[in-house]
Amino acid sequence: MSITVVGTVAFDAIKTPFGQTDKIVGGAATYIAYSASYFYKPVNMVSIIGGDFDMEELEELKKRGANTDGIEIKHDGKSFFWSGSYHMDMNSRDTLATDLNVLLEFNPILPDSYKNSEYVLLGNIDPALQMKVLDQMSTRPKLVVLDTMNFWMDVALDNLKAVLKKVDVLTINDMEARQLSGEYSLVKAANKILAMGPKYLIIKKGEHGALLFHEKQIFFAPALPLEDVFDPTGAGDTFAGGFLGYLAKTGDVSFDNMKRAIIYGSAMASFCCEKFGTERLKELTMDEINERIEQFVSLVQFDIEMRA
Amino acid sequence: MSITVVGTVAFDAIKTPFGQTDKIVGGAATYIAYSASYFYKPVNMVSIIGGDFDMEELEELKKRGANTDGIEIKHDGKSFFWSGSYHMDMNSRDTLATDLNVLLEFNPILPDSYKNSEYVLLGNIDPALQMKVLDQMSTRPKLVVLDTMNFWMDVALDNLKAVLKKVDVLTINDMEARQLSGEYSLVKAANKILAMGPKYLIIKKGEHGALLFHEKQIFFAPALPLEDVFDPTGAGDTFAGGFLGYLAKTGDVSFDNMKRAIIYGSAMASFCCEKFGTERLKELTMDEINERIEQFVSLVQFDIEMRA
Repeated sequence: MSITVVGTVAFDAIKTPFGQTDKIVGGAATYIAYSASYFYKPVNMVSIIGGDFDMEELEELKKRGANTDGIEIKHDGKSFFWSGSYHMDMNSRDTLATDLNVLLEFNPILPDSYKNSEYVLLGNIDPALQMKVLDQMSTRPKLVVLDTMNFWMDVALDNLKAVLKKVDVLTINDMEARQLSGEYSLVKAANKILAMGPKYLIIKKGEHGALLFHEKQIFFAPALPLEDVFDPTGAGDTFAGGFLGYLAKTGDVSFDNMKRAIIYGSAMASFCCEKFGTERLKELTMDEINERIEQFVSLVQFDIEMRA
Repeated sequence: MSITVVGTVAFDAIKTPFGQTDKIVGGAATYIAYSASYFYKPVNMVSIIGGDFDMEELEELKKRGANTDGIEIKHDGKSFFWSGSYHMDMNSRDTLATDLNVLLEFNPILPDSYKNSEYVLLGNIDPALQMKVLDQMSTRPKLVVLDTMNFWMDVALDNLKAVLKKVDVLTINDMEARQLSGEYSLVKAANKILAMGPKYLIIKKGEHGALLFHEKQIFFAPALPLEDVFDPTGAGDTFAGGFLGYLAKTGDVSFDNMKRAIIYGSAMASFCCEKFGTERLKELTMDEINERIEQFVSLVQFDIEMRA
């Protein structure tokens, strides 16, 4: 029993209105693993890094319950590097650099111990590689979650559509949902996307929360209003990690439990934004997480007695 | 016992990606009155119109429980006219025409029967006129709600701040909250605005829902995801009308009841967007309204059992 996550493990350099960092550890799989590990272990990581990576970070991840056997180390290569600068609204950013480096050679090979994972999260990489990971599973996982982005819709739409037929949950943002469906209305977009394969669709709207669609049902979770959003990098991945970690912990992939999982994912994402990079995700306690869940409850809870 | 509403009664010409109208009846007080009348009567209207206005519309409003004695008719003048064109996202629009006409002469005089209203809604007009309405009340109302916009922050900030000291609830959008407070974070903005006088602040975010702030408490209500947003004109006023109508009906102005009132206001606003102008607001049944409230419940409801 395990979670398997494929995605980047990388360096980021981040600039926000509140400050900036040198190269710090980032990457989707890193955020996902830190977030999921509060709920479930092990989190099997599949990724590729260069010889320049901070190997102490791998030890830190292992201590928290990550299995890093599936992280290939190209000792003569350089790790994937992304640099970006956020605007005041923190919902938009300029990319300053994207150095793919070893990611160009990424050919995910799953260690045998990963192949019977019940929960699989295909992070935002080439859909052909996402498919390759799925093909290596020895049994059909209980739940497959796929994250992707507009770039793959532009350059690899056929491969993306092929892998979408094989997943249970798709997570994308509102712009991407519109692009993938050709519909402006998110309700119409969701109906079209659910017809492409995924049984569940999560549309992430950043500071405006997230929507879960399943058949004709819709659930909405707000983002927690924060005094300061310090650095939103990795918030979407942290959300996905918390979401899947909670589902794995409870072993229940019903729509009702997905609602709870989305609240846990949103809580983890809210922590992620409070400091640069993964910093805040390394220092949390379950008490802090539970306190934040209670904030979500009081944020949206109301009681209206309907007449029968 | 009554609600008193001051605001425009006007003509609009609206263009959206789905169609366009000739001059149709609009104006904040019109939307507010139609919306509130589903919950509470009478709704005393204070406004000014020209001799060109559609007097049958006044009869229609009266039939629904509006008192139009406070609507001054300038027979030789023309009614306020606004024309706008919505972009595809329906959250932004270009103003094509704003003909103030008789609004330039507006000097609200309250009929005696209005002066002991328990619930007062000061719609978006010159803050000096909003103050003038309040000054005519013979007793301090149970609840005063004020709506305003960025224009008055630009040209009449001192008068706006003066009237803010006398109101209970302020409703503005997110951009306006940022402008009024000088804070980007809505949580920080709310804290500053609550220190200006209002005990409650509602920040309207259009399709992204609404936030209610009171002391250190926050409540969030989403907008209902719709298949089609046909015409959002008047949705904010319809929200305010439903909100205040529900509060007046229940006679309870506690924070917990305001949460419910916001859900009712959001439900009314969702109907408003389904057809042009006030059309949808004239044909609703309480069964339809209650059904929509149930959609809001299932949209946000989740059950997480917290350990004590």
